[in-house]
Amino acid sequence: MTSAESTSNAPAPESKGGVVISVDAMGGDRGPAAVVAGIAQSAEKNPDIRFIVHGPRTELERLIGRRRDLAARCDIRDAQGVVSMEDKPSQVLRKGEGTSMWSTVESVRKGEATVAVSCGNTGALMALSMLRLRKLPGVNRPAIACLWPSRNPQGFNVMLDVGADIRADAQDLLTYALMGASYARNGLGLARPRVGLLNVGTEEHKGRAELKQAHELIGGTADAGNFEYIGFVEGGDLPSSRVDVIVTDGFTGNVALKTGEGTAKLVGDFLKEAFGNSVMSKFAALLAMTSLKRLQKRIDPRRVNGGVFLGLNGTVVKSHGSADAMGVSSAIKLAFQLAQSGFHDRLAARVAQSLTVENTVHLEEVANKGAS
Amino acid sequence: MTSAESTSNAPAPESKGGVVISVDAMGGDRGPAAVVAGIAQSAEKNPDIRFIVHGPRTELERLIGRRRDLAARCDIRDAQGVVSMEDKPSQVLRKGEGTSMWSTVESVRKGEATVAVSCGNTGALMALSMLRLRKLPGVNRPAIACLWPSRNPQGFNVMLDVGADIRADAQDLLTYALMGASYARNGLGLARPRVGLLNVGTEEHKGRAELKQAHELIGGTADAGNFEYIGFVEGGDLPSSRVDVIVTDGFTGNVALKTGEGTAKLVGDFLKEAFGNSVMSKFAALLAMTSLKRLQKRIDPRRVNGGVFLGLNGTVVKSHGSADAMGVSSAIKLAFQLAQSGFHDRLAARVAQSLTVENTVHLEEVANKGAS
Repeated sequence: MTSAESTSNAPAPESKGGVVISVDAMGGDRGPAAVVAGIAQSAEKNPDIRFIVHGPRTELERLIGRRRDLAARCDIRDAQGVVSMEDKPSQVLRKGEGTSMWSTVESVRKGEATVAVSCGNTGALMALSMLRLRKLPGVNRPAIACLWPSRNPQGFNVMLDVGADIRADAQDLLTYALMGASYARNGLGLARPRVGLLNVGTEEHKGRAELKQAHELIGGTADAGNFEYIGFVEGGDLPSSRVDVIVTDGFTGNVALKTGEGTAKLVGDFLKEAFGNSVMSKFAALLAMTSLKRLQKRIDPRRVNGGVFLGLNGTVVKSHGSADAMGVSSAIKLAFQLAQSGFHDRLAARVAQSLTVENTVHLEEVANKGAS
Repeated sequence: MTSAESTSNAPAPESKGGVVISVDAMGGDRGPAAVVAGIAQSAEKNPDIRFIVHGPRTELERLIGRRRDLAARCDIRDAQGVVSMEDKPSQVLRKGEGTSMWSTVESVRKGEATVAVSCGNTGALMALSMLRLRKLPGVNRPAIACLWPSRNPQGFNVMLDVGADIRADAQDLLTYALMGASYARNGLGLARPRVGLLNVGTEEHKGRAELKQAHELIGGTADAGNFEYIGFVEGGDLPSSRVDVIVTDGFTGNVALKTGEGTAKLVGDFLKEAFGNSVMSKFAALLAMTSLKRLQKRIDPRRVNGGVFLGLNGTVVKSHGSADAMGVSSAIKLAFQLAQSGFHDRLAARVAQSLTVENTVHLEEVANKGAS
C-alpha cells in the first residue's frame, strides 16, 4: 500500500487515540480540493480528529500532501468511482460498490470510523446508508435532521425529517420525535428539549389524520422519552424560541427547509442591492461592516452545514453539495461532536426503550377503549 | 334606515358608477378602527372605489363619520355578530348568519359588490364562501392564492393553494394550475405565465404519486390553458425568476408560506439587532435609512397582503388577521384590480374550457392505453 501514511511513516489513524471520521472526498459541486481544504481546517482546529478519506488515491495524495502535517492524520482509501448528483439511488445500490461514497459508508459499518461525512447526492447516500448500515431496531423510516437558525439561546432548532422519505405515518412521526429529542440533547446540549409537531394551525382539530394520531402518540411518550411535548406548531415557529425540535414528514420538511434557505438568500440579495444603491448607502455599509458580518455569520448556511441521518446503525452527516472548505469543516465539526458524545448509542437505547413504552401506551389505549 | 349615507343624503354606492367592494370591518386583530382607516386610505387613492361595510352600525358610523368625505362612499350594513379567530368553521356555518363576515360574503352573492375583503378567521371565511358562493362548475377544491416576493420583473410570484384544503389530488393540482395562471394573467399582467409544480426535487422520478400524475396532466393542458409548464420546482424556487406560478397542495403551501414569512421576519429582526449593536452601526443605519426603507418595502408583507380565494362563484380576498391600515388598503387595492379586470369571468371561462380539454386528454390517454 502506497498511501500518504505509509510514505510519511504514520500509523493508520484508527490505531491512534481520538475520533475517526470517514470523509467522502468526491461528489460535491466543488470537487475534492474543497473537501480536503475543509479537512485541513478541521484538523488545524481540532487535534483529536483523524480522517479516513475516500476517492482516487493519486489525486487525494497530491491534495493532502500539499497541506502541512495533514498526511499524517489521513488514511486514504482508493476509490475510483464517483456518485454524481444525477445518479438515481437505485442505480447506485446496484453498481455503486467501487465508489468513494460506498467506501465512506463502509468504514462506519466496519467500525473503523464513528461517523461518515459526504457532500454527495442525498438520495444515493441515504439509500447506500440504509443498505449497508441497516435500520435500527424499531425504526421503520430513518430521517434526516437539520439545524435551523432560531431565537433560542442555543442559536438553532432541530427539524426532521427534511427529506429521507416523502411519507411518514403517525408511528414514524413518534420515532422522529424520539430521535430528534435525542439529537437535541447530545448535539445542542439541551437537557429536556421541547418538541413540536408541524401543522397548518395550532388548534387540535386541524390537519391530516396521521397528524392527529401522532399528536396523541407523541404526547403520551414525552415523559418516558425525556422531552416536553408542546403540541402543534406552524411554519412561522421554525425559528421560534418556544420549541427546540420540529417534527414533520420528509416532503413537508424538505419544502420548508428549501423555502427558508431561499427566503434568507432573497432577503440577503435584496440587502446587498439596497446597500449598493447610492454612495451614501455604500458608505453606510462600510461603517456597518462589523454588524453586517455578524448578521451574516448568524444566518450563514455554511455554519449549520450538515443534515444528520438518524435511525441507522451508524451516524452519517450529509453536507450541502455546494459546501466550500468552511462548509465541509462545519460538517466535520458536527460529526466530531456527535461521535464524542456517544450520540449513536444513546439514540439507539432511546428508541429501544420507547418500543416498550409504546407497547404499554398502546395496551392502555386498548384497555381504555374496552372500558368506555 | 339611518345609515351614514342617508344622513349625508348620498345614494347607496351600488347605484353609482365604479367598482363596489364589500368589506368586513370586524374579526381582524386590530378591530374595526384599522379596517376603516384602510378603507379611508384606499378611498383617497382611488376615486373609483365604493364600499359596503359590514359590522355594528353605531360603531361604524362613528368611525366612518370621523373621516372626511368617507361616509358618502360607504354603505353600512348592520351586523352585530363577529366571527372570532377561535371559532370553528363548522360552528360559523351553523350559527354565523348574523355576523359581519356572513353579511360581507352575502353582498357578493347578491351581486351588490364584485369582491369581498375580510381580515377574519381564514377557515371560517373559506367555509362561508363555499357555502354561500358555491364552487365553480369543474372545481372540486377551491384554493387560496398568495403573492410571494420574487426576483421576477413583476416583483411577485403566485403560489397556490396556501391553505384552503389540506389535501389535493392530481386533478385538483391541474385546476390550481389553470386558476393560478389566470390570476397571474389578470392580477400581474403576464401574457403567458410559467407554471411550476412544487416537489422535493426537479427530477421526474421524484415525489409522491399524485405529483407524478399531476405533472402529466398539467403538461398536457399547458397549451390550451395559455400557460407554459416548466415542470417540478423546489422550495428554493418560490422567489425564483424562472417561474411565475407555483402549484402545491394546501398543507405544503401553508407551511411554506408561514416558513417564508417567519424566515424573513427572523432575518429582519437579526438585522435590526445588528444595527443596534454599536454607536458606529447606529450611525450607519441612519445613513443607510433610505436604502433600508426601500428593502423593507420590497419584503413588507403588508404590501402583498391578500390571499385570493379561487374557484368560487365570486372573488374573496382574505387579508392578514394582523393587518393595519396599510395592509387593509393593499388588500382592497388587490380586490379592486381583480374586480376591474373582469378576472372572475375570465377564470370561470378558463376552467369551463379546460373541462373540455381534460376530457379530450383523458380520452386520448384511454385510446393510447387501448393501443399499447
